[in-house]
Amino acid sequence: MNGPSLRGVLAPVITPFTGGLAPDPGRFQRHCAWLLAQGCCGLAVFGTNSEANSLGQQERMDLLSGLAASGVDPARLIPGTGCCSLPETVALSAHAVALGCHGVLMLPPFYYKGVPDEGLFRSYSEVIQRVGDARLRIYLYHIPPVSGVAISVPLVERLLKAYPGTIAGVKDSGGDWEHTSALLGYAAQGLEVYAGSEVFLLRTLRGGGAGCITAGANVNPAAIDRVFRHWDDPSAEALQAAIDRVRVILQSHGPMIPALKAVTAHFAGDPAWRTVRPPLVELPGAQTQALLDDLMGAGFAMPGLAG
Amino acid sequence: MNGPSLRGVLAPVITPFTGGLAPDPGRFQRHCAWLLAQGCCGLAVFGTNSEANSLGQQERMDLLSGLAASGVDPARLIPGTGCCSLPETVALSAHAVALGCHGVLMLPPFYYKGVPDEGLFRSYSEVIQRVGDARLRIYLYHIPPVSGVAISVPLVERLLKAYPGTIAGVKDSGGDWEHTSALLGYAAQGLEVYAGSEVFLLRTLRGGGAGCITAGANVNPAAIDRVFRHWDDPSAEALQAAIDRVRVILQSHGPMIPALKAVTAHFAGDPAWRTVRPPLVELPGAQTQALLDDLMGAGFAMPGLAG
Repeated sequence: MNGPSLRGVLAPVITPFTGGLAPDPGRFQRHCAWLLAQGCCGLAVFGTNSEANSLGQQERMDLLSGLAASGVDPARLIPGTGCCSLPETVALSAHAVALGCHGVLMLPPFYYKGVPDEGLFRSYSEVIQRVGDARLRIYLYHIPPVSGVAISVPLVERLLKAYPGTIAGVKDSGGDWEHTSALLGYAAQGLEVYAGSEVFLLRTLRGGGAGCITAGANVNPAAIDRVFRHWDDPSAEALQAAIDRVRVILQSHGPMIPALKAVTAHFAGDPAWRTVRPPLVELPGAQTQALLDDLMGAGFAMPGLAG
Repeated sequence: MNGPSLRGVLAPVITPFTGGLAPDPGRFQRHCAWLLAQGCCGLAVFGTNSEANSLGQQERMDLLSGLAASGVDPARLIPGTGCCSLPETVALSAHAVALGCHGVLMLPPFYYKGVPDEGLFRSYSEVIQRVGDARLRIYLYHIPPVSGVAISVPLVERLLKAYPGTIAGVKDSGGDWEHTSALLGYAAQGLEVYAGSEVFLLRTLRGGGAGCITAGANVNPAAIDRVFRHWDDPSAEALQAAIDRVRVILQSHGPMIPALKAVTAHFAGDPAWRTVRPPLVELPGAQTQALLDDLMGAGFAMPGLAG
């Protein structure tokens, strides 16, 4: 893994499924191309919003290989590779390294709760040693509301000291600005801090952070990228306020993943995008309409999106 | 999957690892044989206490195939097969069916939280359809303190109605007797209810339940089996009180899995048993000694256990 830092906006790309609930590589590749054309600096495929944890190891590998073969530069990819089990995390991470991905976004093992930092340190250490490749660059994925397992600031510090060339950054989806702020204290030591929601983007950038990896970038990438490009301008506050309004709407009509897919289905004119894998359930029609009404009332669109 | 109901005590067998953190089939098979010889009616290998969610798909398949090849009757096995991802759950369940296992213990997909019952119903339905084998018998695994995803009573009822020959039972590790009690209301419809801890065993049996699948059965199987065999005798209360005392001690000196392994290591005279896979951490020496002192003070032993 190599190349310069991916500073800017990354999308945790939503994963399309066929009617038979198989991943749909064609739609996936087209959506990835659209996101990059809209200003995303990179793609955090296989994030939480990608339903990645509902995908099998081979399904992830096939989608990633296919994406690279479709012409997307692997240096723009930070695929999620953190699973419950050590062998699966190692296999996915090694595959991403072999493909030349920029880095990997790695959840801690998340089945067992209340585990000590020492155990999480050993988990990451074991993965690093088993992958055994100096090109491995890990972005630690802190999302305790979903994973149930936090990555504490002392753990980040310990990992950064032990593996300075390998621990590249953190995605902070905890929703707690104090935690993000503490992590930004390590930016001078090379830690790239990504906000887990665009609502923290401006604050993150002003604190020395690298950008954001956010659900909202799936549907609103250009506007979020404008905040990134203008963070030091007088216009930044207004640009941030505009993306905040869209984010609030996206969150207000049901669970985020089905909502993102319903919005994408609408603007792509492609109902197949609504499909989610269980245990998720697609957004009901009435909620979808209310969501679209609110978004369009705010002037929202997804220009250039094709089915 | 076939054969009579496995009424009685099942152990979620602890999984031994080598110094290199690979599963150790030899120690695993010897421990399984000891558990069956001590009175376990069956083995719920790959449960929570087995660190199953830290094992990869192939590791689980190899351990299970090896166990059957070692002479353990597959009709006595209820392996855990529930993973986050649909393909992995399907692959493990199909493998267990093909080996002739009595049933499978199936967690709901557990990464995404706050999912609706409809989504969980679809998850189990999809697994049943993809396995596509009338021999499949599913024991639903309710353990919200760890999985973060509950299996509600209405969901159990709906699944039982939709798949009466396939939904065989429930393991209730929620720690809430009211939930277990509500599930026992479906015993007349064939639902086999297992308590998730031996502390609920007598109540579960008196309510028409099938037995228990419990961490404690890894180290105290004979005494727990005595409660099962004498539940309708005047002696039952005293037998239950005796296993309760051991359970309290097991829980009082640190996390359960490292504690079970430390106790096993001691009585087997085999320090290798202490090894856990990250993110767990083995029980420190001082805690181990305090735990052993308490257990031996209560007259506890693991007779016939060899390294």
